[in-house]
Amino acid sequence: MTTASATTHDALSADPSAEGAVTRPQGFSACGFTAGIKESGLPDLALLVSVRPATAAAVFTQNQSTAAPVHISKANCANGTLRAAVVNSGNANCATGVQGLADAREMTQLAASLLGCEAEDVFVNSTGIIGHYLPMDLLREAIPQLAPATDGGEDFARSIMTTDTFQKESVATFEANGISYTIGGCAKGAGMIHPDMATMLAFFTTDAPVAATDLDAAFRHAMDRSINMVTVDGDTSTNDSAVILANGAAGGETLSGESLDVFCDALDAASIPLAKMIARDGEGATKRLAMTVSGAKSWEDARDVARTVVVSPLLKAALSKYDPNWGRILMAAGRAGVPYDLDRVKIWISDLCVFDGTATGVPEEEASAKTQGEEVFLRMDLGQGQSEATAWGCDLTEEYVRFNADYVT
Amino acid sequence: MTTASATTHDALSADPSAEGAVTRPQGFSACGFTAGIKESGLPDLALLVSVRPATAAAVFTQNQSTAAPVHISKANCANGTLRAAVVNSGNANCATGVQGLADAREMTQLAASLLGCEAEDVFVNSTGIIGHYLPMDLLREAIPQLAPATDGGEDFARSIMTTDTFQKESVATFEANGISYTIGGCAKGAGMIHPDMATMLAFFTTDAPVAATDLDAAFRHAMDRSINMVTVDGDTSTNDSAVILANGAAGGETLSGESLDVFCDALDAASIPLAKMIARDGEGATKRLAMTVSGAKSWEDARDVARTVVVSPLLKAALSKYDPNWGRILMAAGRAGVPYDLDRVKIWISDLCVFDGTATGVPEEEASAKTQGEEVFLRMDLGQGQSEATAWGCDLTEEYVRFNADYVT
Repeated sequence: MTTASATTHDALSADPSAEGAVTRPQGFSACGFTAGIKESGLPDLALLVSVRPATAAAVFTQNQSTAAPVHISKANCANGTLRAAVVNSGNANCATGVQGLADAREMTQLAASLLGCEAEDVFVNSTGIIGHYLPMDLLREAIPQLAPATDGGEDFARSIMTTDTFQKESVATFEANGISYTIGGCAKGAGMIHPDMATMLAFFTTDAPVAATDLDAAFRHAMDRSINMVTVDGDTSTNDSAVILANGAAGGETLSGESLDVFCDALDAASIPLAKMIARDGEGATKRLAMTVSGAKSWEDARDVARTVVVSPLLKAALSKYDPNWGRILMAAGRAGVPYDLDRVKIWISDLCVFDGTATGVPEEEASAKTQGEEVFLRMDLGQGQSEATAWGCDLTEEYVRFNADYVT
Repeated sequence: MTTASATTHDALSADPSAEGAVTRPQGFSACGFTAGIKESGLPDLALLVSVRPATAAAVFTQNQSTAAPVHISKANCANGTLRAAVVNSGNANCATGVQGLADAREMTQLAASLLGCEAEDVFVNSTGIIGHYLPMDLLREAIPQLAPATDGGEDFARSIMTTDTFQKESVATFEANGISYTIGGCAKGAGMIHPDMATMLAFFTTDAPVAATDLDAAFRHAMDRSINMVTVDGDTSTNDSAVILANGAAGGETLSGESLDVFCDALDAASIPLAKMIARDGEGATKRLAMTVSGAKSWEDARDVARTVVVSPLLKAALSKYDPNWGRILMAAGRAGVPYDLDRVKIWISDLCVFDGTATGVPEEEASAKTQGEEVFLRMDLGQGQSEATAWGCDLTEEYVRFNADYVT
């Protein structure tokens, strides 16, 4: 029998069950450290290690202004294996030219020396200010002191945070071939709202045995439906990345067929809560938006419309004040590049149908009442097919502008 | 000899020379009227008429949630001739289904009856609230009372305004084949910042004789480099459109060759100031941004990067507080979908080069000083070709959010 279940941890729900998520699977250790990169004195260096070589898959930012560590990590992930990930916060090592590449490479070498593995088996990333060289003197001193532990997952999750107001962790478990497996995930990113400091980084671990090509396909599928469906302001970061290590430490045969399917479901279950936590943590945000587009011809069409609507500043501003402004949903959807017939479109705010080719005449107060909660559920049906996708975002408040205007590099 | 010159009128510069622009060319009359659609009692109905059949060209919103009058006007412009344009403000006649189409068609019929022309020769549009039927009783009473006059251009420009804080008019003149010709233009639109009320509409007139196919090509070229390069928040309207009528009333042979080229230059000169005025009139905006992308492989590449940067909420918020945050320019440019090599990129704030593969080390105070004026000039060179494009936008302030959050449909 194959079953999957998931629990999540975020400071909002105060559910402690996912704390230390990335070291929950067997055979992983991790730690956090204060290297002194951040002026605040908060932890700014993190290391995640698998006791044995792991198959690996990763997805990276599509931004053309790619940061140095992303170049190095792409190369190191190309063969589908990794042993460790080293990450600093407080400095993005982006727009740093040739020196930046050398610095990112040296971070992998320092971690490899500590762990006794190859530098090419180390994933590296950085998050923080753009355009400044890494303080390599601090990193040369700190990395050799790192002491990863099997209960270090929570320290890891905290040390990669920048403007995040709470750590984001998620655990999913599943059974396959009579063995219980675990997937742990953690992420940082306050919704790409603060690009000098708010790269989205996500790290996943599992003790299940998964072949590299299967892991790659499953991971892309899960990321496309979770992290890639979070959009706060349409801006993307130069350092965004997500990586998974599968070390097979729980034993059993390499997953395939039905057992691979249940792994995919569990991976989705572990990653979607992280996406929602990132959306909720947008600075200045008072509520989360979940925008579902149904009745599309393809998942890609549904995705494109959902993401376009959820990022509309006009809709986001309206919802911050409980204005059930479905005209703004129609207007935003119209620029997604997906053809539709307006006469066949329906729009719901929560369970209220407010548009069905023309206005349905639902009283505005009634619709407004559906926008008062901490999460607003919107749905638009295109009336042309069976595909569906959901994107997550947040409202737009004056606090967002104040935060991003006042921050000085 | 062929020469072109242009003057503009906006309330900021208080230059009166372009007042009544659309009736400056010979053979045009126009008027404004208070039909009672707006609760404010401000003018909300406008008519523009050519004394004789005119060749015509138009561009329309790409938004899939197209408003009813856009459907009718597209059909009426298809044969390249028009006699008149009738427009109401205060109600967008969008998301109004079959009834909306009938209402838009009736507006053209009412105008045609008044003018003694065919309904198919009348352009129609509406701007205002989405999702409400037009008050046809008011329009049936008002349209027959309209009295277009040869000095009515300014009334026309005022009657199409919604949230605009000043009317937007522009005049260009040129000589060809020994004859002096005039182009007049007016626009409304507070930068698409307030979608229920801020459709972008633009109307151009000229007394030059231009063949329909040449007019279409010239108009698309001019709109692509002016109105289509304005972007305030990335949202687009359901009713956006721009139209030009060329009635040949100043005489002379149909323009061709060099005389057609000078017409194209004059049309650009008439339309770019309108684009800048729209950008400047974004609610809550305190300054205009002009983002030039040079060194691109194609104009399309330059356009895509310039528009993507100028709409970035993060950059816009930074500039509102004089933060010369070029990292946000890099980050925003990176998501335009145009490949480039970061090492070859240069960025200027005004005349200061702040990035040249890596940070140039310009002191922040010095760069900040360049962002203090009413217009901030940014340039990014991609280092890969000769093409260039400029997009216009505005900064993002807390006032923008307040305005759009508090407005209730």
